[in-house]
Amino acid sequence: MEKMHAEILEQIRAAREEDLRAPRGIADRKRVVGLIKEIQVVLLPGHFHYNDLSEEAAFDNLVRDLDEQIGSALCFSGTSPMKAKKLAEEFIQTLPEIMRQINTDIQAIYDGDPAAKSKTEIILCYPGFYAISIYRIAHVLYQLGIPYIPRIMTEYAHEKTGIDINPGATIGDYFCIDHGTGIVIGETAVLGHHVKLYQGVTIGAKSFEKDENGNPVKGGKRHPDIGNHVVIYANATILGGDTVIGDHSVIGGNTWIIDSVPEGMKVYYTNK
Amino acid sequence: MEKMHAEILEQIRAAREEDLRAPRGIADRKRVVGLIKEIQVVLLPGHFHYNDLSEEAAFDNLVRDLDEQIGSALCFSGTSPMKAKKLAEEFIQTLPEIMRQINTDIQAIYDGDPAAKSKTEIILCYPGFYAISIYRIAHVLYQLGIPYIPRIMTEYAHEKTGIDINPGATIGDYFCIDHGTGIVIGETAVLGHHVKLYQGVTIGAKSFEKDENGNPVKGGKRHPDIGNHVVIYANATILGGDTVIGDHSVIGGNTWIIDSVPEGMKVYYTNK
Amino acid sequence: MEKMHAEILEQIRAAREEDLRAPRGIADRKRVVGLIKEIQVVLLPGHFHYNDLSEEAAFDNLVRDLDEQIGSALCFSGTSPMKAKKLAEEFIQTLPEIMRQINTDIQAIYDGDPAAKSKTEIILCYPGFYAISIYRIAHVLYQLGIPYIPRIMTEYAHEKTGIDINPGATIGDYFCIDHGTGIVIGETAVLGHHVKLYQGVTIGAKSFEKDENGNPVKGGKRHPDIGNHVVIYANATILGGDTVIGDHSVIGGNTWIIDSVPEGMKVYYTNK
Amino acid sequence: MEKMHAEILEQIRAAREEDLRAPRGIADRKRVVGLIKEIQVVLLPGHFHYNDLSEEAAFDNLVRDLDEQIGSALCFSGTSPMKAKKLAEEFIQTLPEIMRQINTDIQAIYDGDPAAKSKTEIILCYPGFYAISIYRIAHVLYQLGIPYIPRIMTEYAHEKTGIDINPGATIGDYFCIDHGTGIVIGETAVLGHHVKLYQGVTIGAKSFEKDENGNPVKGGKRHPDIGNHVVIYANATILGGDTVIGDHSVIGGNTWIIDSVPEGMKVYYTNK
Amino acid sequence: MEKMHAEILEQIRAAREEDLRAPRGIADRKRVVGLIKEIQVVLLPGHFHYNDLSEEAAFDNLVRDLDEQIGSALCFSGTSPMKAKKLAEEFIQTLPEIMRQINTDIQAIYDGDPAAKSKTEIILCYPGFYAISIYRIAHVLYQLGIPYIPRIMTEYAHEKTGIDINPGATIGDYFCIDHGTGIVIGETAVLGHHVKLYQGVTIGAKSFEKDENGNPVKGGKRHPDIGNHVVIYANATILGGDTVIGDHSVIGGNTWIIDSVPEGMKVYYTNK
Amino acid sequence: MEKMHAEILEQIRAAREEDLRAPRGIADRKRVVGLIKEIQVVLLPGHFHYNDLSEEAAFDNLVRDLDEQIGSALCFSGTSPMKAKKLAEEFIQTLPEIMRQINTDIQAIYDGDPAAKSKTEIILCYPGFYAISIYRIAHVLYQLGIPYIPRIMTEYAHEKTGIDINPGATIGDYFCIDHGTGIVIGETAVLGHHVKLYQGVTIGAKSFEKDENGNPVKGGKRHPDIGNHVVIYANATILGGDTVIGDHSVIGGNTWIIDSVPEGMKVYYTNK
Repeated sequence: MEKMHAEILEQIRAAREEDLRAPRGIADRKRVVGLIKEIQVVLLPGHFHYNDLSEEAAFDNLVRDLDEQIGSALCFSGTSPMKAKKLAEEFIQTLPEIMRQINTDIQAIYDGDPAAKSKTEIILCYPGFYAISIYRIAHVLYQLGIPYIPRIMTEYAHEKTGIDINPGATIGDYFCIDHGTGIVIGETAVLGHHVKLYQGVTIGAKSFEKDENGNPVKGGKRHPDIGNHVVIYANATILGGDTVIGDHSVIGGNTWIIDSVPEGMKVYYTNK
Repeated sequence: MEKMHAEILEQIRAAREEDLRAPRGIADRKRVVGLIKEIQVVLLPGHFHYNDLSEEAAFDNLVRDLDEQIGSALCFSGTSPMKAKKLAEEFIQTLPEIMRQINTDIQAIYDGDPAAKSKTEIILCYPGFYAISIYRIAHVLYQLGIPYIPRIMTEYAHEKTGIDINPGATIGDYFCIDHGTGIVIGETAVLGHHVKLYQGVTIGAKSFEKDENGNPVKGGKRHPDIGNHVVIYANATILGGDTVIGDHSVIGGNTWIIDSVPEGMKVYYTNK
Repeated sequence: MEKMHAEILEQIRAAREEDLRAPRGIADRKRVVGLIKEIQVVLLPGHFHYNDLSEEAAFDNLVRDLDEQIGSALCFSGTSPMKAKKLAEEFIQTLPEIMRQINTDIQAIYDGDPAAKSKTEIILCYPGFYAISIYRIAHVLYQLGIPYIPRIMTEYAHEKTGIDINPGATIGDYFCIDHGTGIVIGETAVLGHHVKLYQGVTIGAKSFEKDENGNPVKGGKRHPDIGNHVVIYANATILGGDTVIGDHSVIGGNTWIIDSVPEGMKVYYTNK
Repeated sequence: MEKMHAEILEQIRAAREEDLRAPRGIADRKRVVGLIKEIQVVLLPGHFHYNDLSEEAAFDNLVRDLDEQIGSALCFSGTSPMKAKKLAEEFIQTLPEIMRQINTDIQAIYDGDPAAKSKTEIILCYPGFYAISIYRIAHVLYQLGIPYIPRIMTEYAHEKTGIDINPGATIGDYFCIDHGTGIVIGETAVLGHHVKLYQGVTIGAKSFEKDENGNPVKGGKRHPDIGNHVVIYANATILGGDTVIGDHSVIGGNTWIIDSVPEGMKVYYTNK
Repeated sequence: MEKMHAEILEQIRAAREEDLRAPRGIADRKRVVGLIKEIQVVLLPGHFHYNDLSEEAAFDNLVRDLDEQIGSALCFSGTSPMKAKKLAEEFIQTLPEIMRQINTDIQAIYDGDPAAKSKTEIILCYPGFYAISIYRIAHVLYQLGIPYIPRIMTEYAHEKTGIDINPGATIGDYFCIDHGTGIVIGETAVLGHHVKLYQGVTIGAKSFEKDENGNPVKGGKRHPDIGNHVVIYANATILGGDTVIGDHSVIGGNTWIIDSVPEGMKVYYTNK
Repeated sequence: MEKMHAEILEQIRAAREEDLRAPRGIADRKRVVGLIKEIQVVLLPGHFHYNDLSEEAAFDNLVRDLDEQIGSALCFSGTSPMKAKKLAEEFIQTLPEIMRQINTDIQAIYDGDPAAKSKTEIILCYPGFYAISIYRIAHVLYQLGIPYIPRIMTEYAHEKTGIDINPGATIGDYFCIDHGTGIVIGETAVLGHHVKLYQGVTIGAKSFEKDENGNPVKGGKRHPDIGNHVVIYANATILGGDTVIGDHSVIGGNTWIIDSVPEGMKVYYTNK
């Protein structure tokens, strides 16, 4: 019997494609999530807790762990891990700027939700805030060209909140998400300041250029630009790399937008 | 180098807004989730487990922990924690009534889903049941005027299920949710008995009254009333504090409802 | 006071319906999730980790734990646990075939997403892959007639990803899900090879036959058939046991489909 | 290679004696230690903590866990587990008496050690108290005829403190141990009230009656009787079932006593 | 039945002496052990690990935790916790001196044991080193007048090693313990530099002055002085506050010393 | 203030001796303890448990973990880790022989203690068995020339039991330890078959040869030989590399032996 099991295990190995046989040193999801939690303690101590770390201790662990995880990720993607320490330092220097952005996001959510009783409640309870703040962190790592880690971070937020923001997206200050489940924001989307999104909004790609094999071409501008002071209601779908939503416009719920919308316009859906 | 880090930490602190520097005693999300788990063991022992607590031990721990967490939450919101013990007792006295309601919800889900093989399966596997039962608990705490805790509870359910029910919503017996991801039910919504919702349904606010600064006015009736024996199919959106959906009506999938619907009416969406 | 508590506990017990008083031996959600994690280590060691188990040790623990959990589940559903060992063996023998299918799914996601940089990134970060691979496992257990466990597995994936695939659904090779939050695939749905779904797609039931008491009749073909090489964009809703979507067709976003669509057809939604 | 490992595993199994192939249901050391910790919380809440159990919850869990563990132990020793519930109840009824005895032990240690600053310090820091209090619990279980559990308990104390008291020993009130490492008290020893022992004291067996095979005969009075108000200094060795140490006597350090000592006598060792 | 249990719990409470009903804020053994582990990481990073803290993070957590635990301990002993922060700082300033002493202890053990292969082995494996290094830490806290914490620390070392050093004892540099189980060093003992002790050595009190109630008088010089370069072999017992062991003397195993021993003397025990 | 802390940390680093600044890859005590626990499950499944590993899974994890830990230990001691795999295999092949020896030890303890009710009780409760079985494992690793790991293993047993057996000691079959606290057996000791030791027995070195610096010379035969069928009672001390205790002799408690004892002799200590 046990011999039979050994044979099944051999068959599984044979069935597994060669490039799925993981070399050692693969980026470790659990430790990347640890980075998020250390940064949360550094930015908002008292609101977030992780392994009983003090604010200062979280910072010190973060310095070490960023170096390690960035090194692993570079290594695994076939790059030299030499630059890891320098990249970690560059990231750490942006933390005050990330803090500043997050202040604006909290303010935007507080101003935008009649049910919000305090900023503390927003930090503790609002999935929108949770997803945005992790996006802010991941986006900086993405800009630094660090592989794997930014995406693991935003997918962790996606798992917790149902909000799927690609770390490559560019988003201005005072970003507000209400409820949020089902939101998708694509890699090349650009959002201005004071944008407010409701649940189920997609800011996505219309269609992909195909290569000679019929597979989508990797890269290229594929997702819309959203202006400043735009509100997009629940389940609206805005698609295409050429689509531009003008400043101060309002996109109604359940709408389907594949063309640009001029400044100040209100697009509503109606049954009639 | 380390001195440079100390300076960055100082910059982060400076960037953090003053009202985000948490005083001690902030409500602890992990311990509020512990309350949920203790209540689940008390209500449905054998189906739910928590820290190896017996049914009786879960009850006893709950008595202590409710007092502590309600005290913290009152304290943090600037109220005297004196009333915590009394409020905890009042909550505990409602547990038999919560149990009764939950029985009706299980029955409604069992009756409403051809795929449900037993009530145990519903308790163990159905996210709809999970979210409804936590709402039932949080709603009673909301009615008692306890700050923070009810919202932390329903957001925990939201995280686990993608179903976002504000603890302030009023919902009758025999409430059934199928699949559920993406459902949103607002703070001032009122749902009757025997209501059934599918995934992606929003029972939300149409628009917010603004104050002189252009910010939404906090409070006020903002969400619809749903009658008894109403079925609302996937991704329907029903908005507005004046919108009333009459008894025995059926709202089709992907519909967009911003006006009242009379009793017994069927509203369907069509491509044609 | 404490006596009062004992009385409340008695009232809770009285309020609890008789069939909810769990017998010992109820299937344990935590241990079923353990099965998933052991299988993940066996199939993709290095990418997944569980309790520091080596690939071989994960396999050995799985042999023991499948036997135990299947035995429990049979027992709880009133069947003799005698067959547990045999069923566990039958499942283990399908693992190489599951591995083969999962290879095709990874390939389909890699080919279908311009943002995917490597197969490792897909395994580590893509909720679509996570949900599909757990469905592959659960579906085999469903076919073997094992109660409770398949559904607990797919609901675990649902919780983590917002993707709700009933373990009874039949799905061909090269299955690709992008973003995924809010997807629902019903128990009797049949999907061909090379199907690609975006977030919010429902492949569901139109309406249920009612019995004399007005309750839906359990069982029966209730969900659509989807052909090969079909793409279904975000938030499309396809309903009904008679609905057939032909090979090579494309279903646009936010569409509502309750009738069959012929081969090669493109169905788009438009505001106009 | 792996096949070779399977063979080694087979050889290990063959080498293992038949009566060491454990049936299921063997008493679980970890859960017996859990009983100790629950009892400690019940007796001295605030001083001892276990899994965040309140005093009442610890009591409730204890009621359930005693029943389970006694059942297992009876089962494993070939007795019917039917009596488990009754034995558990009998034990629980002795808890107030155990509490009374432990009060006297704390008092004796406080009175006997010039370095003891408070009773709280004794409960938190003194290994002598730790070992005595666990012996008090285990002795009652021993008297009730429960197999395995009493010995697992006193060996747990032995591991933590280096103090080895057989649960069968009979010990009066106001028992004081100072330092304690290396103390051994045998199964049939009888100690009076107000006895004080220092580290390294053995109250042991002189020699064992052998049976026809040269093995010690199991059972029989093999260890000394110690009177009331006796002090025994460090590393004294007192042996034999007929040896009686009279009331109010003092046994000096490093002495070797194999004969009785009359009341009020002082036995000192000298280099000279 | 359950009512009967409530009565038993009441009886236990009644049996518990009043001064054992713990107020909140009692020093927490687990957190004091945490202090030890943080200090070990600060002093010997790489050799000791705790909660994955970096050397710097361990230092930062220590700063916070010392303040908290000293505050608790002062509070519980009826003193104002105001001085906690100042005492914590004073302790932290002694850490370089503690490091220096510990270097000498490691050197002494390395020089004194033919079986020691490296200093790393001593740090990882030698219970003597473990107990001495914790004593070094606890002694400084004892000198600062901090209640409870020093004793909890040395008793933790006692539990792990069987070596019982009172934190009040004064011990010079290059202190070496071999094997160590059963060693006892009293509160008022004074040991010089280059002292080496084997297992089972007691440096204890001869007898206690009694007060009018027959209880030992608290305080006073009760334990011996040991000179420099003294070796004391296994199980030797040296007692009394007036007993002085001169420099460069050797005390043989199993000896019983209650009088002073002059410089350079060798005291051996013999059977003859 | 924080700058002051950074300076203190610098001072600690300066005070730390250079050879105590640990390189990466130091043998990890926790993982070595994991090896012990995996071996215990392989040898006595059902009696020992570790991370819920099945007998087979424990074996498979052991194969991997031995390789890793031996590699680390070789590396850290400056040897090439190349041989790790081969050494791990050699160790694994001795497991059936270790099992055979352990059978004899259990038998010896069972035969030697009138209080032992079953072999299961011995495995679960007897510190003597615990220490002997870990020594059996560590001794084989010692013989294979593996650095650090054997000593970490026996010191783990020492911590748990107070029994300190150097892994280099040679010990025959049917080895019995009763109570055991305080036992010391030196690196070059040789014990025959059917030896029985009581608590506090030292089989140690008399004195060490010094080198020109006055430090003990490393290596050399320093500890006694004990024949077959020898009983050594509590607290006996037997010292010296030339000391030979003949077969079938009995050494009384508290004796001090520095010369050889002929076959069949009984050495007793007496007060008179």
